[in-house]
Amino acid sequence: MKRIGVFTSGGDAPGMNACIRAAVRTALSRGLEVFGIYRGYQGMIEGDIVPMNSGDVSNIIQRGGTILKTARSDDFRTEQGRRKAAENLRKYGIEGLVCIGGDGSFKGASILYEEHGIKTIGAPGTIDNDLYGTDSTIGYDTAVNTVVQAVDKLRDTAASHNRLFIVEVMGRDAGFIALRSGIACGAEAILVPETPTYIDALIQKLRDGWNRQKHSSIVIVAEGDESGGAYEVAKAVKQNFDRYDVRVTVLGHIQRGGSPSAYDRVLASEMGYAAVEGLLDGKFNAMVGRQGREIVFVPFEKAIKHNKELNKHLLQIAATLSI
Amino acid sequence: MKRIGVFTSGGDAPGMNACIRAAVRTALSRGLEVFGIYRGYQGMIEGDIVPMNSGDVSNIIQRGGTILKTARSDDFRTEQGRRKAAENLRKYGIEGLVCIGGDGSFKGASILYEEHGIKTIGAPGTIDNDLYGTDSTIGYDTAVNTVVQAVDKLRDTAASHNRLFIVEVMGRDAGFIALRSGIACGAEAILVPETPTYIDALIQKLRDGWNRQKHSSIVIVAEGDESGGAYEVAKAVKQNFDRYDVRVTVLGHIQRGGSPSAYDRVLASEMGYAAVEGLLDGKFNAMVGRQGREIVFVPFEKAIKHNKELNKHLLQIAATLSI
Amino acid sequence: MKRIGVFTSGGDAPGMNACIRAAVRTALSRGLEVFGIYRGYQGMIEGDIVPMNSGDVSNIIQRGGTILKTARSDDFRTEQGRRKAAENLRKYGIEGLVCIGGDGSFKGASILYEEHGIKTIGAPGTIDNDLYGTDSTIGYDTAVNTVVQAVDKLRDTAASHNRLFIVEVMGRDAGFIALRSGIACGAEAILVPETPTYIDALIQKLRDGWNRQKHSSIVIVAEGDESGGAYEVAKAVKQNFDRYDVRVTVLGHIQRGGSPSAYDRVLASEMGYAAVEGLLDGKFNAMVGRQGREIVFVPFEKAIKHNKELNKHLLQIAATLSI
Amino acid sequence: MKRIGVFTSGGDAPGMNACIRAAVRTALSRGLEVFGIYRGYQGMIEGDIVPMNSGDVSNIIQRGGTILKTARSDDFRTEQGRRKAAENLRKYGIEGLVCIGGDGSFKGASILYEEHGIKTIGAPGTIDNDLYGTDSTIGYDTAVNTVVQAVDKLRDTAASHNRLFIVEVMGRDAGFIALRSGIACGAEAILVPETPTYIDALIQKLRDGWNRQKHSSIVIVAEGDESGGAYEVAKAVKQNFDRYDVRVTVLGHIQRGGSPSAYDRVLASEMGYAAVEGLLDGKFNAMVGRQGREIVFVPFEKAIKHNKELNKHLLQIAATLSI
Repeated sequence: MKRIGVFTSGGDAPGMNACIRAAVRTALSRGLEVFGIYRGYQGMIEGDIVPMNSGDVSNIIQRGGTILKTARSDDFRTEQGRRKAAENLRKYGIEGLVCIGGDGSFKGASILYEEHGIKTIGAPGTIDNDLYGTDSTIGYDTAVNTVVQAVDKLRDTAASHNRLFIVEVMGRDAGFIALRSGIACGAEAILVPETPTYIDALIQKLRDGWNRQKHSSIVIVAEGDESGGAYEVAKAVKQNFDRYDVRVTVLGHIQRGGSPSAYDRVLASEMGYAAVEGLLDGKFNAMVGRQGREIVFVPFEKAIKHNKELNKHLLQIAATLSI
Repeated sequence: MKRIGVFTSGGDAPGMNACIRAAVRTALSRGLEVFGIYRGYQGMIEGDIVPMNSGDVSNIIQRGGTILKTARSDDFRTEQGRRKAAENLRKYGIEGLVCIGGDGSFKGASILYEEHGIKTIGAPGTIDNDLYGTDSTIGYDTAVNTVVQAVDKLRDTAASHNRLFIVEVMGRDAGFIALRSGIACGAEAILVPETPTYIDALIQKLRDGWNRQKHSSIVIVAEGDESGGAYEVAKAVKQNFDRYDVRVTVLGHIQRGGSPSAYDRVLASEMGYAAVEGLLDGKFNAMVGRQGREIVFVPFEKAIKHNKELNKHLLQIAATLSI
Repeated sequence: MKRIGVFTSGGDAPGMNACIRAAVRTALSRGLEVFGIYRGYQGMIEGDIVPMNSGDVSNIIQRGGTILKTARSDDFRTEQGRRKAAENLRKYGIEGLVCIGGDGSFKGASILYEEHGIKTIGAPGTIDNDLYGTDSTIGYDTAVNTVVQAVDKLRDTAASHNRLFIVEVMGRDAGFIALRSGIACGAEAILVPETPTYIDALIQKLRDGWNRQKHSSIVIVAEGDESGGAYEVAKAVKQNFDRYDVRVTVLGHIQRGGSPSAYDRVLASEMGYAAVEGLLDGKFNAMVGRQGREIVFVPFEKAIKHNKELNKHLLQIAATLSI
Repeated sequence: MKRIGVFTSGGDAPGMNACIRAAVRTALSRGLEVFGIYRGYQGMIEGDIVPMNSGDVSNIIQRGGTILKTARSDDFRTEQGRRKAAENLRKYGIEGLVCIGGDGSFKGASILYEEHGIKTIGAPGTIDNDLYGTDSTIGYDTAVNTVVQAVDKLRDTAASHNRLFIVEVMGRDAGFIALRSGIACGAEAILVPETPTYIDALIQKLRDGWNRQKHSSIVIVAEGDESGGAYEVAKAVKQNFDRYDVRVTVLGHIQRGGSPSAYDRVLASEMGYAAVEGLLDGKFNAMVGRQGREIVFVPFEKAIKHNKELNKHLLQIAATLSI
């Protein structure tokens, strides 16, 4: 393998730049030539491909977003689009790809291999942490810190006004962001899609708290929770327990941005490094993952199809500490 | 005057604690006794009043919210409620009040003087900066910084995705937060209630930008803008110009919290100090304000009734720099 | 076991409060009575011991430092002092202790058990991460983030001036903070006590970089590095390669403070929870550790005597990515 | 005037990029051509001059440092160097300059006018705020916030350990950074060069505080204070009052970097805008200043030669509030 391509795909996540930097520099240090592919699969199809050297990734480790940009590609859903993408890669002599993205991106890479033999290794870049086979994805720690810092601010105002804040956080179908941020900001309740949400029990808990003079509270709701989100929860609470002044905050896209945390920068560096080492070592159709202290390679098939379980132990700790 | 009371009222704002600390310590240094009144006028009515010493305000200058809490008081809207409040103040021998809050709070103080002769001096504590007679209110600078930091994060993801973000910020009927934060984060457009909003012109500007390869943009909308807010603007843009992937973020209550900025801590310290000096100097029914380099006293009547104008010069700068 | 005590000891670390909160609330939820012991062993000797309930640990999870304070205790180094400490614990009926601190604190706990049968379980609270048996200590992630944010600021000014910054970070005899923060901020070189430091090689690297037009650089030096620290390194560089404008920054105690990161808050919560569960389960003279995904108990003897190794793989990654 | 040049000079300061952006875009909007001059006077001499358009200053408003870089220039101190600089400007047809920097930079501009008739307008860019004729310089507010955030972290550890921290801050010969940051972080004492420093009185104050159970304290020392800096103060305190565990922190160059505060971004935008308007209006050999609410033009001669006085009122407030 002499030439590889690097691209980011799907929703952006803080740390993607650190991963690009690591992949590019590791590849260069191994004597490879490296190409950056802009706007994910769409840029692959359009030939938006440029050579990258060490200086091109200078001073980006601390930046949110992705310098290679990312985009949805409807064209890539067509056989014709994928053929065009493969042709472009061949034109540049690109024999292997490092794809930084989530499950949709890895599915695309799998099809590209099946149809055209393009070998791709993945690095899990998503704030949602919803990929099987890795304890943590690139961007997850930063997103959790962003939530925690925002909720710290809400607590100031909650405590000053005796208010209840219902805070909706991202995570798609999963509760990873909600669970960790909920523990970290000392939320009185955390509602996640992985466990049944009983609004009655929540209201009883708030009532009990109020009677114990706990007059300000934070409830974290994952956007994928079956309650339907923060506004629905707020409505139900107001209807059944009117002592609190209830406010809703939907944190939204600030969770996707910002300078990556130290943890994400190191994780992204490790993963970008491992991705290139893996490619050179004959690994492909697989995602780099961290399991405990180990860096592992997880077949795309597993990473995509399996559901990652929420840490049960953390759920229990959350319940115990929020009394 | 031998005993004064200090309270916070209305929506909380970062820096209120710094102002409480300044008022308490200045009063103590002048030989006064100081009482903290909890939960604004409601606590005044309920007699939630405690003596404060220097140590009680230690280590609070950096905290958001207000240690004295704040609350709405329906009781205070009744003659009976106000009589009870005045009685409680007399019971404690409190001869003067420092009220940290906004226009509603100052109105209350005026009535309390008219009906019961209680002398109050105000310090403008509100993130909205909508009080006539002061260039800046306590909490405004912090709120603007909070918006700017959030929008910096959104820019990362906007730039990575070629997206347009419509960001709604607080400010009630006024555009002060929107204008300053819009300039500071380099927004492509700023919609404020003080000037007419032409959605057509906005769309044309976005279209022109797109044609000049400006593929990510930020539009700041004041919550009081006549367009009806960020969701309405987004709807109109989508209907008329579909190139952008448009996203809405409503920043919400995080704008009210957080550790106060250095600017707000110093301003709040100056104002808390001036409030007590003013009271001792026979000033009341007036708000402490900063005008240019001067600390001034503005009659409540003026501060409440006059509309503060948005800085026209800044509007012009915003228009010039967003090209 | 019906009554336990909780204390912090040694240097403070962000997340200690989160751990106190977790230990107190877990104990309460198990039906135990909990006492807070102020100022570590010194407070134990002086009887500075107070009962704690759930509300006492409200609103502390986000605060740096330790509400229980910490202090050196010369008295505890004497047999008489330790006897007094044990007597006080018995007086309060305290049968088990949760000690949040580092190796010195755990040594003290061991002696207290040997001499007086007091059962202690430890939670590793130190920014230095230098305890064997746990991948991460409470405070380490926050300290690394603090360093990274500071160095991000230095990079601005380094890049503007074509400067070389030599930055000294904490870590006592170990290079954990230096290594992770060095990777995370993309340092051009990282000097740690665990590996030999060749100043000549460093200078050659800087010279090579300069010739490749890399005109601003960051070198991270662990305070325990055998080079003697940042000032010594700067002196050597200046003497041998005079192109750079060399500046030294010793980050100092800001590394110990600040609101804990989400990671540290969750880790501290898990560890405080596990400590109490461990005590109830008959564990003592042992430290709670995290190894990979597992929470484990490591005998004090091992935690103290064994040297934790620096992650060799990270050293290699650092070398590769700093080209 | 058809072509202008923009450059930054002297020590870098957060907000310089915002000022560059404002100057460039204002000039373009007025139909001017704009050139960026790299590395200040040195780049002017070396002909490091490039045309700038609107896109070149996109996405820089939030970045610390200066994209145009800055450097000392020994060559510019020679007549020959300045002649070369003037020749280069003529070669590019540059008729006016916007210089963002401090007093040394403005002196250089004055000489360039005297000798070669080059018309320069200045924008005050320095964290030190030591320029006469403007209430605030670009970068000052950010530097003060950086100090305050650092000291907030130190307070955590000071309070946990009953420690006294002596913190040295920047400011060259002036105490502006020390005074504002000292008030904002509630320092127990602030030592500035503009007022006599009595170490005996400081020690007495610390002793009194200790006796009132104030067991942790922060003292801010301006680097230019006649005491000789933080280490000297610490030595004196230790010799005369040994109850405190005294620690020194020299904050150093982190004060120069970081993303500019909202205040500095707006101020820099106003000043960059005014500088270009001024040039077009025939103003030169003058600095843009903010005085109260007004943007003014101050002759270089005044700005450089006059000493800006420290706000006496703030000194008094600091003394009152630190009891």
